[in-house]
Amino acid sequence: LDPGLDHLSACAFINAIKQENGEITAFRSFAGALVAPESEDNLWNYKFTWNPQNVVKAGQSGMAQFLKNGKTQYIPYWQLFKRTQAVEIEGLGSFEAYPNRDSLKYQSAYGLDQIETIERGTLRRVGFTKAWDLLVQIGLTDDDLVLKDLSQSTYQDFTTSFIKINKDKDATQNLVEYLNISPEDESFQKILWLGLLEDEKIGLEKVTPAQVLLHRLHQKWALQPEDKDMVVMQHQIEYIKDKKKYRKVVDLVVKGENAQRTAIAKTVGLTLAMATELLMQGKIHLRGVFIPTAPSLYVPILAELSKYEINFKEKTEELGMN
Amino acid sequence: LDPGLDHLSACAFINAIKQENGEITAFRSFAGALVAPESEDNLWNYKFTWNPQNVVKAGQSGMAQFLKNGKTQYIPYWQLFKRTQAVEIEGLGSFEAYPNRDSLKYQSAYGLDQIETIERGTLRRVGFTKAWDLLVQIGLTDDDLVLKDLSQSTYQDFTTSFIKINKDKDATQNLVEYLNISPEDESFQKILWLGLLEDEKIGLEKVTPAQVLLHRLHQKWALQPEDKDMVVMQHQIEYIKDKKKYRKVVDLVVKGENAQRTAIAKTVGLTLAMATELLMQGKIHLRGVFIPTAPSLYVPILAELSKYEINFKEKTEELGMN
Repeated sequence: LDPGLDHLSACAFINAIKQENGEITAFRSFAGALVAPESEDNLWNYKFTWNPQNVVKAGQSGMAQFLKNGKTQYIPYWQLFKRTQAVEIEGLGSFEAYPNRDSLKYQSAYGLDQIETIERGTLRRVGFTKAWDLLVQIGLTDDDLVLKDLSQSTYQDFTTSFIKINKDKDATQNLVEYLNISPEDESFQKILWLGLLEDEKIGLEKVTPAQVLLHRLHQKWALQPEDKDMVVMQHQIEYIKDKKKYRKVVDLVVKGENAQRTAIAKTVGLTLAMATELLMQGKIHLRGVFIPTAPSLYVPILAELSKYEINFKEKTEELGMN
Repeated sequence: LDPGLDHLSACAFINAIKQENGEITAFRSFAGALVAPESEDNLWNYKFTWNPQNVVKAGQSGMAQFLKNGKTQYIPYWQLFKRTQAVEIEGLGSFEAYPNRDSLKYQSAYGLDQIETIERGTLRRVGFTKAWDLLVQIGLTDDDLVLKDLSQSTYQDFTTSFIKINKDKDATQNLVEYLNISPEDESFQKILWLGLLEDEKIGLEKVTPAQVLLHRLHQKWALQPEDKDMVVMQHQIEYIKDKKKYRKVVDLVVKGENAQRTAIAKTVGLTLAMATELLMQGKIHLRGVFIPTAPSLYVPILAELSKYEINFKEKTEELGMN
């Protein structure tokens, strides 16, 4: 997702707490490029609104790293979509987040060197990750192997080349047994809905499993002209102030108008445009490559964004000390 | 394991069947560098007798590929140690084999282009792969990530940095719950036996998880001076001759004398020495780099090997046609 708006808002809320002498102990940040509830009309509650290749390859660039209670934690790719956490967004309901590659990358830039817990994650609707994990477990997201003899293959041939085959059973039964899942399971229904067991030619050659999967997903997860996309972001900041513990939750929800005028284009494009404008007006004195952690950047940009209905909702609750 | 002896014997038996007009339909070949039964004195029934690094990194170089009933099959790394097959060796009992990286690599060299099934695998004692799979699932075999802040870490710190931690439970309970396994499970007992939850400093810095694991395995799986190693190999060749179906099973078992005079050194070194001798005697007219698939190589070498008690036992049974 747009790192600009993510960093911008994270730093704005972190700095505001620090200025009031709050000591930040935990920072969690989640974001997702999704579809608006009114366009959630498939089993996955998901469509491509951003870079599809990144969706298929998510998590493959190395172990996920984050900090929890002062200890660095690692997650290998094949556990990533099992290690989700629940995230509630007011007015939108329940989501789940799988860990981003490197939650520690921006720790220093955010001024959080002393923090105990820092986690960043990607938001999906509940149920997405469990089904995606099945694709990972089967091996369909692999982007290294070039498949042999694919020219005449169907999606069923493709999928069943990764699983144990009992010749006396059909493809669905074999897949159900391989995954050790009920055929009625919602995750399995999501796999079937993608048509990965269909007797339909793929029509590709010399491609990787990830490329075959992406090809299929493009057909199934295409944003339709009247679909509305939705960018969702949540920062959770725990801090101690005057010996009391608090949690601030900051939500951002931006909906698109249709498949052309999208929320993702707005959230990615506007911050960049505004930063460019500030630079041209001579209002930025920083030189070099920066993520927008400086007040001289985020204060005017956040003010400007609210003119475009990009507003962060914040809520603070007191927590019991433990 | 020694590819020399593997290829040499595979080609010798394949060619013998072809010369008798047998049509080969399936070829399976398994090999393992293990310890002799009298030295199987740890829970894993395994010690390092060959390249330890290859053991830790086994399967990580890419998806395993093999051919089954005319169809190319693929297995991702995280399924590899679940996709084993049982192998019986006469006089030694039960083993299990996990798939080698590329079973198709030598298909043409062996003259098996028309074959329906070709599988190669690595032999371990029964139970090894299920426990090894736990190490893979946790993430401990990863050789890419450089671990942070390791200098003061214990093995318990190391292992628990890959799993979900419930602060109210101890490390063993957390690991048992993460793996969804019974603490009495033999696989879990194997993990404990490695001392991966012990409160003992690792004493390494700037290393990968695989390097930490290897360091520990070197301590636990060291071949002791009086230990005997054992090389085990089995080829299974199915063929049709005169409209009848047969399976030939060829076994090789070579035991070492002690940790110095090992079976693995014998099986690797002797074939090479003999091929060199044949070359010097002017008996090899092949030029270039070859695997020993030619009768001019394997006939004299196999004869010579039997002087060193390296003998293949073969057995042929008739199968029902299906």
